[in-house]
Amino acid sequence: MAYEFKMTGQVQFVDTDLAGIVHFTNFFRYLEGAEHAFYRSLGFSIHSPGSPRTLGLPRVAVACKYRAPLYFEDRFETHLLVREIREKTISYVCYFRRLLGESSPIVARTELTIACVAIENGQARMKGIAIPKSLSDQLESAPAELLND
Amino acid sequence: MAYEFKMTGQVQFVDTDLAGIVHFTNFFRYLEGAEHAFYRSLGFSIHSPGSPRTLGLPRVAVACKYRAPLYFEDRFETHLLVREIREKTISYVCYFRRLLGESSPIVARTELTIACVAIENGQARMKGIAIPKSLSDQLESAPAELLND
Amino acid sequence: MAYEFKMTGQVQFVDTDLAGIVHFTNFFRYLEGAEHAFYRSLGFSIHSPGSPRTLGLPRVAVACKYRAPLYFEDRFETHLLVREIREKTISYVCYFRRLLGESSPIVARTELTIACVAIENGQARMKGIAIPKSLSDQLESAPAELLND
Amino acid sequence: MAYEFKMTGQVQFVDTDLAGIVHFTNFFRYLEGAEHAFYRSLGFSIHSPGSPRTLGLPRVAVACKYRAPLYFEDRFETHLLVREIREKTISYVCYFRRLLGESSPIVARTELTIACVAIENGQARMKGIAIPKSLSDQLESAPAELLND
Repeated sequence: MAYEFKMTGQVQFVDTDLAGIVHFTNFFRYLEGAEHAFYRSLGFSIHSPGSPRTLGLPRVAVACKYRAPLYFEDRFETHLLVREIREKTISYVCYFRRLLGESSPIVARTELTIACVAIENGQARMKGIAIPKSLSDQLESAPAELLND
Repeated sequence: MAYEFKMTGQVQFVDTDLAGIVHFTNFFRYLEGAEHAFYRSLGFSIHSPGSPRTLGLPRVAVACKYRAPLYFEDRFETHLLVREIREKTISYVCYFRRLLGESSPIVARTELTIACVAIENGQARMKGIAIPKSLSDQLESAPAELLND
Repeated sequence: MAYEFKMTGQVQFVDTDLAGIVHFTNFFRYLEGAEHAFYRSLGFSIHSPGSPRTLGLPRVAVACKYRAPLYFEDRFETHLLVREIREKTISYVCYFRRLLGESSPIVARTELTIACVAIENGQARMKGIAIPKSLSDQLESAPAELLND
Repeated sequence: MAYEFKMTGQVQFVDTDLAGIVHFTNFFRYLEGAEHAFYRSLGFSIHSPGSPRTLGLPRVAVACKYRAPLYFEDRFETHLLVREIREKTISYVCYFRRLLGESSPIVARTELTIACVAIENGQARMKGIAIPKSLSDQLESAPAELLND
């Protein structure tokens, strides 16, 4: 059973904007990268080539509160935590911490709720389904005190 | 006095992902595009070349609830509404509607709060300042019934 | 018969980087946007929902020479020109001009060669096919003097 | 003296498009990421906060030939090679190889020429300067046979 996943990244030049900081949309890119790495660490992938049906995990809701900027070449930690597993959705909280030697202040706190859909090939239309047990059986909610930083 | 701004866009190929729909991060790109077009429509720009000081409008908080996907080449309307103007922040609500002949269902509802900062050149560090009167004097809150769709 | 297409755009904030200019990758985004708008203007789309087979136009080769930067909120013209139509490929030249009142200097010159493939659904593997006649019959090469600016 | 740099990456979901493959623009993002990692490995950064002058390395020319697609979660190697160092420009060749157990076919070959500029703060205008010796003194051209794969 897993309730968290951590990975580190580094700000790329293309992630910055003319204000000299990471453009706010990139935190959601980093978030999704950590989410998929978390699934891979559990042996689960939304990728199943050759299947007539593709599994999708569309976002139902996302949110981010920004406390401080990240700059070019900053190293940061993405800390993903499971908040709640329901039949058809999973919700996460994710903290971004700027890695600065001893200290690592939180620069952003993100929330994410995903659903699960089946995508019939050749149709590009989606149908809501239950979260696969091969994923949900491996997940549990993180302790509440970790979710409210 | 202005409390809303509408513009239309069309989904580009690069905006889509392998699930065949617009990647969720792009709604924030569309949102920011409408926000800046709104400022331009009021004669206000964060762009003032040659000044020793640059004005920035960093995002304090963003959120999006997704109701339905957008597909390649879909035409959509971005409808930005002022929710509240405070001394140092402005909050917005923004609806995305898929344009389909007579009907135009809401596919996403976004919330945005921005602050205002001065960026001293050569420092890339930010200092919170009041929203410039040249902007805030032109804005008013949208009627409440428009904000809760 | 058509050999060129023009459209105008405006630099978005997210397109810039910390050097204060448009990040070089965005010229290829602008290029593809003009290419697809050109196809739509001819009644042709790579989008055919519900078909068991999707048409794709993958890039075989792209190139760009940058002469001058574009800045936030700059208006620019994308000028796409057909260089050559072959059985399985089409090559283009594309000029980007910064719109500045009377003058409009070329800021970048792009080259693009595309191929045509069929994507069998559920397989995500591609097979080279001839350019559809519904497209190629409408295209002709631009005069040579337009291609060598 | 260094003439090459290798790093590995993995295709992110956001990098894909509705054709199910990596959107062509992302190879240039990967390229720039490897270039900056190469500079960092040499103790050189374009980032010098607090300076009244920022160093920039704008792209003069880029090109890419695509041989095969990359898919979601594919692991790949970015292999950057110095082609030529001149007073004011550096040119590179970069190979992308898909990592597939024993084999690692080249999926794309990129060319890049950069110049060096000084960006005076508060002006956002650029002036061409010589490549800093702290960088150029560490570089040499790769053997010709490595550049023509």
